[in-house]
Amino acid sequence: MDTITAIATRTSIRNFSGEEVSDPVIEKLLHAAMAAPSAMNAQPWEFVVVEDRDVLKKIAEHPALYASMTEKASVGILVCEDTEKSYKNFGAQDCAAATQNLLLAAHSLELGAVWTGIDDEQAKLFCDWFSLPAQIVPHIFVPIGIAAEDPVPKKKFDPEKLHYESF
Amino acid sequence: MDTITAIATRTSIRNFSGEEVSDPVIEKLLHAAMAAPSAMNAQPWEFVVVEDRDVLKKIAEHPALYASMTEKASVGILVCEDTEKSYKNFGAQDCAAATQNLLLAAHSLELGAVWTGIDDEQAKLFCDWFSLPAQIVPHIFVPIGIAAEDPVPKKKFDPEKLHYESF
Repeated sequence: MDTITAIATRTSIRNFSGEEVSDPVIEKLLHAAMAAPSAMNAQPWEFVVVEDRDVLKKIAEHPALYASMTEKASVGILVCEDTEKSYKNFGAQDCAAATQNLLLAAHSLELGAVWTGIDDEQAKLFCDWFSLPAQIVPHIFVPIGIAAEDPVPKKKFDPEKLHYESF
Repeated sequence: MDTITAIATRTSIRNFSGEEVSDPVIEKLLHAAMAAPSAMNAQPWEFVVVEDRDVLKKIAEHPALYASMTEKASVGILVCEDTEKSYKNFGAQDCAAATQNLLLAAHSLELGAVWTGIDDEQAKLFCDWFSLPAQIVPHIFVPIGIAAEDPVPKKKFDPEKLHYESF
């Protein structure tokens, strides 16, 4: 899929068919994620790949996570920052760039995915469930699967958000 | 350009020819940026588009900004967060996702670009120069232009950053 088209037509998918996504495809997504830029090329990201259906169900059912779509996802990818590797306080932005690559790659491969942000309270659950070491901070959880919906992408271009030469 | 190819072959460009980039192309980049996902769909981004050569030179020459490549860029785009619109503390990540879209769009349109992060001290300069209101926080500055170099993208895929089911 053409890049400009992929960017324009990607949208959050929250209903999945439950079908499997093959391991080579999942690896393609992770290659795309790690191709992102990072501050001082620190590449401070770490990824936990979750395919265990019981664990996906646990994530889906926890009331604090608002991630019920995970129940029928094929895989969930937890994007984490290694705070011992990140430069200044740019680690969360680096993880966000990697996640955007991952979402675009998924869309271009005709998969559905959705970015779910992780706040400090929610992070404690992921740290516990996935035995994250103290320096590893989970920032984003991405359920991925075969889309069982076909929503129209939101129109978000807003010329009022553009400022020329000065705000 | 195919999305997977664009993601894999995009790399930071720090040498520009000085040639102009047309306004319709710049607008395409901004459309791509605003197509990014954001927490609670807050779309908390604002963009300052800088084409004034004197201002680009000022950015290039300031010793605290490490942005000398800006001198020959065609345009610089300052990606800012409106902290009155962002959800929780996800605004910087939203701006990062928008920036990654912008970089991929630029690369797919055969332009060069580079992500330069803005720390708190550097932010003060941009706030001053571009008259940013108090709630507007500049996170990333992206010089863009016609590439005058053709660097080989770094190989960044690292299987040691992958963890299956648990860290």
